[in-house]
Amino acid sequence: MQKVVVVGAGLVGSLQAILLAKKGFEVEVYERRPDLRKVELKGGRSINLALSTRGWKALKLAGVEKQIEEITIPMYGRRMHDENGNLSFQPYGKDDQAIYSVSRGDLNKRLLLEATEYDNVSFFFDQKCNDLNLETNTLEFEDKEGNIKKVKADRIFGTDGAFSAVRTRLMKTDRFNYSQQYLTHGYKELLLPANEDGTHKLDKNALHIWPRGKFMLIALPNEDGSYTCTLFFPYDGEYSFNSLQSKDQVEGFFKKTFPDFYDIMPNLADEYFENPTSSLVIIRCEPWNYEDKVLLMGDSSHAIVPFYGQGMNAGFEDCSVFSEMYDELGSDWHKLFDEFSKQRKPDGDAIAQLALDNYIEMRDLVGDEMFLLRKKIENKIYEKHPDKWMPLYSQVTFSHIRYSEAYETGQKQKRIMDKVMDRDDIKEKWDSDEVENEILEALNDAG
Amino acid sequence: MQKVVVVGAGLVGSLQAILLAKKGFEVEVYERRPDLRKVELKGGRSINLALSTRGWKALKLAGVEKQIEEITIPMYGRRMHDENGNLSFQPYGKDDQAIYSVSRGDLNKRLLLEATEYDNVSFFFDQKCNDLNLETNTLEFEDKEGNIKKVKADRIFGTDGAFSAVRTRLMKTDRFNYSQQYLTHGYKELLLPANEDGTHKLDKNALHIWPRGKFMLIALPNEDGSYTCTLFFPYDGEYSFNSLQSKDQVEGFFKKTFPDFYDIMPNLADEYFENPTSSLVIIRCEPWNYEDKVLLMGDSSHAIVPFYGQGMNAGFEDCSVFSEMYDELGSDWHKLFDEFSKQRKPDGDAIAQLALDNYIEMRDLVGDEMFLLRKKIENKIYEKHPDKWMPLYSQVTFSHIRYSEAYETGQKQKRIMDKVMDRDDIKEKWDSDEVENEILEALNDAG
Repeated sequence: MQKVVVVGAGLVGSLQAILLAKKGFEVEVYERRPDLRKVELKGGRSINLALSTRGWKALKLAGVEKQIEEITIPMYGRRMHDENGNLSFQPYGKDDQAIYSVSRGDLNKRLLLEATEYDNVSFFFDQKCNDLNLETNTLEFEDKEGNIKKVKADRIFGTDGAFSAVRTRLMKTDRFNYSQQYLTHGYKELLLPANEDGTHKLDKNALHIWPRGKFMLIALPNEDGSYTCTLFFPYDGEYSFNSLQSKDQVEGFFKKTFPDFYDIMPNLADEYFENPTSSLVIIRCEPWNYEDKVLLMGDSSHAIVPFYGQGMNAGFEDCSVFSEMYDELGSDWHKLFDEFSKQRKPDGDAIAQLALDNYIEMRDLVGDEMFLLRKKIENKIYEKHPDKWMPLYSQVTFSHIRYSEAYETGQKQKRIMDKVMDRDDIKEKWDSDEVENEILEALNDAG
Repeated sequence: MQKVVVVGAGLVGSLQAILLAKKGFEVEVYERRPDLRKVELKGGRSINLALSTRGWKALKLAGVEKQIEEITIPMYGRRMHDENGNLSFQPYGKDDQAIYSVSRGDLNKRLLLEATEYDNVSFFFDQKCNDLNLETNTLEFEDKEGNIKKVKADRIFGTDGAFSAVRTRLMKTDRFNYSQQYLTHGYKELLLPANEDGTHKLDKNALHIWPRGKFMLIALPNEDGSYTCTLFFPYDGEYSFNSLQSKDQVEGFFKKTFPDFYDIMPNLADEYFENPTSSLVIIRCEPWNYEDKVLLMGDSSHAIVPFYGQGMNAGFEDCSVFSEMYDELGSDWHKLFDEFSKQRKPDGDAIAQLALDNYIEMRDLVGDEMFLLRKKIENKIYEKHPDKWMPLYSQVTFSHIRYSEAYETGQKQKRIMDKVMDRDDIKEKWDSDEVENEILEALNDAG
């Protein structure tokens, strides 16, 4: 029996542990932090994520879909808040298509509890990975008392996140490409509490956005009636983390810029200065494996910015793709790991780029009239010709089309729509057969 | 008195130590490897570098120009060897402009010996940098016996090369951008020995190139009559390190591809398999400093590929630029380090790109008729209008124009020359007033 070690018991590590357990492996999971199953999750700072189709597929494969559903809130579209507090709504997809708000901590805890159900999974917490000997495939962990434990594995899965210790070791191997690239914007979370009766202060089934061009505020609903709000903001410049230094400045800025949010948010300035400012990083590397010994999954090989809500979903998709490839290729591990890296790397690159592009869309374009018209035209074509045109957002969020393929199709669609939107008469003719035919012909021409 | 620590006693570290000593600092230099002054340099595998104008400036500033001149060999141009063994020559610049072949080991040793002349410089060898505490600016070194030494510094200069321990620590600080990118080509050195009477087997005062499209062989002269030859070659593909597995394959390949080299190179296949295949990496990062505490210089912040002969020269230019900036800004260290990073980073990026571009020129274009004509036209314009047109190679190699500026000018020149070379009659008219005027007008238009 193969002994596999999963380094990192975060979202991807816990899910991968379940999937490996289901295949009959002896799985040991090592995690740097304390056992989430035992600690009460801190209130105040709760990170929210949006589960979508790719994530659900992997959860279903692990048999935990129902259990996770219980802790999610569907969001059917974007609720935009303009500078006067006026609201508008853009559905994410068709009919009841939604993305699902979920607390990272709650989700992680559930996955750990589900993994615990398997006798062939063991967890070890407070274990810091100090070293990895690639000759012998032996990991060295250190606990809080400084005790050292050496663990030899047949296979190692590095699911230890953007600052992965496993990847740090691979970086020292010859011809390992790597980059960490920080954005000039950071983020700060603010907790908007529930009403006194426990209800939500904003429409519950939407992702709220206050798009403001060079920055934005967003809010995702929590089960307890609160919202986790995030300000994405430049570090430097006229309106920036560096320019807001006093409570008065913060109050003034929010009152002017996000008036309807300001009206309902208590203790704004205190919260603002108590909560940390965090940075946004994109991690890229290649290859994602070391021979037949180590495979990186999730953020450790492809950390992305959060603007497409796909970081976790991409990590979960790693798990489902790996599971399917294992079922197909069997235990030729070198081939399996090579193939996984080769196949998934372009998808990781594509979603990294898409997520970066989507920041501009979210913070700027979603409030733009011509952008909304463009979406309306695209949706019409999608409605009438679903076999010919699926909007990029739907491909990424509601399909299993490879990210790299979605990216290519999206680029093609963009070229077609750029030309259509260039028509002087587009505002009048957008719903005409003429425009529809122009798009369909351009699609045919583009092959 | 400020105590400054230089980590790494390679080329840049040794030179920087001299320059800092001249400014009166107490300088401690820590080096992972043994003392080069004491060990006899191994024959067989000797890396050669090409010193040019930027490097000489820094050496002059350190007062060691004369001592280094003694161990260099001027190369006045490229000597091309075609597939039939025919030779041609392209001068690098005007008149007696040359780049200077020098052994990395000999140069390093000389610089160390020169630095030893200063009472305020101390060297510590066999000292591996294990850790750097950025709070206290304390370095931890480990010697071969495992003894730990802690060194607190006012300023730290990280000149510890492409795999810098100092930079590895900075990588863990927030918002530090970093990338390591390997080429799909690697290299292998081969030593072409001197004739029995100690003379060179090839023209001594040239850099020899066997350009072959997707790969190339080059040779730089050594003082002892030998040549250090380097095969730059893809890892994979029809002709590649992976495709040459047997001695017969190596012999056959060289005989057919580099016939005149094959004829004079003894023990080719043995040498080929005894010498390692090495990889080529480009390192980029930002910022190059950590507050007023740490500054990266040389390969630790901008390792580049060797195809422009500028890796060492760029590192030496770091030293001369730093020295000048210190003289100008004085000891406002935070400002000095910030400013150095801000000013030099675009130059590091530019020379990284230029070096990559030059690989294509060296391995492919230098044998191309139209490329040679293009160079002839450029040289004519340079001769007649030296104030208006300096070829890119000369800007990079024989001037102190900032790399980033040279890159921009080079791009502009390329656009002009692309258009000129597109003329149907360029072969007949290249030397005409018409073509000359076309170029001058395009220059005016481009501003």
